[in-house]
Amino acid sequence: MGYQEQTIEGRNAVLEAYRSGKPIDKIYIQDGCQDGPVMTIKREARKQETLIKYVTRERLDQMSETGKHQGVIAVAGAYEYARLEDILAAAEARGEEPFLFLLDNIEDPHNLGAIIRTANLAGAHGVIIPKNRAAGLTATVARTSAGALNYTPVARVTNLAQTIEELKKAGIWFVCADMAGTRMYDLNLKGPIGLVIGSEGEGVGRLVREKCDMIAAIPMKGEIDSLNASVAAGVLAYEIVRQRLI
Amino acid sequence: MGYQEQTIEGRNAVLEAYRSGKPIDKIYIQDGCQDGPVMTIKREARKQETLIKYVTRERLDQMSETGKHQGVIAVAGAYEYARLEDILAAAEARGEEPFLFLLDNIEDPHNLGAIIRTANLAGAHGVIIPKNRAAGLTATVARTSAGALNYTPVARVTNLAQTIEELKKAGIWFVCADMAGTRMYDLNLKGPIGLVIGSEGEGVGRLVREKCDMIAAIPMKGEIDSLNASVAAGVLAYEIVRQRLI
Repeated sequence: MGYQEQTIEGRNAVLEAYRSGKPIDKIYIQDGCQDGPVMTIKREARKQETLIKYVTRERLDQMSETGKHQGVIAVAGAYEYARLEDILAAAEARGEEPFLFLLDNIEDPHNLGAIIRTANLAGAHGVIIPKNRAAGLTATVARTSAGALNYTPVARVTNLAQTIEELKKAGIWFVCADMAGTRMYDLNLKGPIGLVIGSEGEGVGRLVREKCDMIAAIPMKGEIDSLNASVAAGVLAYEIVRQRLI
Repeated sequence: MGYQEQTIEGRNAVLEAYRSGKPIDKIYIQDGCQDGPVMTIKREARKQETLIKYVTRERLDQMSETGKHQGVIAVAGAYEYARLEDILAAAEARGEEPFLFLLDNIEDPHNLGAIIRTANLAGAHGVIIPKNRAAGLTATVARTSAGALNYTPVARVTNLAQTIEELKKAGIWFVCADMAGTRMYDLNLKGPIGLVIGSEGEGVGRLVREKCDMIAAIPMKGEIDSLNASVAAGVLAYEIVRQRLI
């Protein structure tokens, strides 16, 4: 599979990319461009929650490979997102009970990459991320995943809470991390499980937390608030690994 | 306590900083400067294993706050390193068996910060890093530690293997992470312990590994090689926490 970044230049090409459903990571738009086609692109970018950067024409000229950017350059990831069904099928093919990671708005691409790396080594069958307000599969994520992005499928969903509801019907239990929960060693984390990891700043959102069957607390002895999100994901994932092994 | 970065400009000021034992993180020297005082500074920088960057005069002019850099600007961390004795005393004061982190050449400041953060929350009494070939306590480390650097003491030592020997006399056992080791759940990690974490690329060095009493393997099911260093540190640290709690 592998990951490669691709730039798309020019108004029509960028609009076409959006229409075909290509995942656009980032879009550069020339400062002050206000005409019809550019407004359509901006609307599309906001709808898809693409990161928009306004830059000077000189900057675009420098970035351009074709010399015909027309005020717009988009950066698309060549990574193909998996479908939820594919992830569940992978678990079944291995004859294992599903073990999924669900990331509630991880924004730091280094954390996202490190978590995909952990998911791979902990034996999880896939990672589910929301389409909105979260880091997508950019080049930085691919790099920090240390190759795991080539093996561990990542699916993007519109609504994480709704996806949890659907997966519950398939018999999967959900656990999220929160300091106010039960000590993780005292929970039964065996069986088909979805591990929900919250964002750095805000933790797991209320709507998603309410859908979870269990709330796990990592014991904390220190003076500060919380572990780094990728470290917390690793600690919880390996408590699941331990319980599954023993 | 807190952490603040400080720049020191000019030949005498920088030499004086070295002589007073101030920890210098980085030093910028003007390209082509070969005269006596600059050679002395370079010698000192190499002795202390400061990162040396050769830059143009224009770059130094830009960085300079005083306008009198004389070809040399040093960046010093205002962080005060702890002594080994202070860390052991902290454990004793809390009435706990020592729990130390030893980092064998962690080079990425984000990893170093995340590990200090984990050490704080796992209830470790301090972190020991080598003076050579490792990230020092820079501003990035302070930031990624999320405040932990203000609570968890960090000591720098010249020779990690030798420090392990000394600490063994104080009754501390050492465990390092290596895929070729015993599954971590099958080791006894209670009691006074030093957790040794290797660098991202090379793992724990041979000399240091040979000094360890136990080699712990984190179970790995995936296709790729290794966890991110700060995630591995978190997973192992929390296996120690679990064993100590139960």
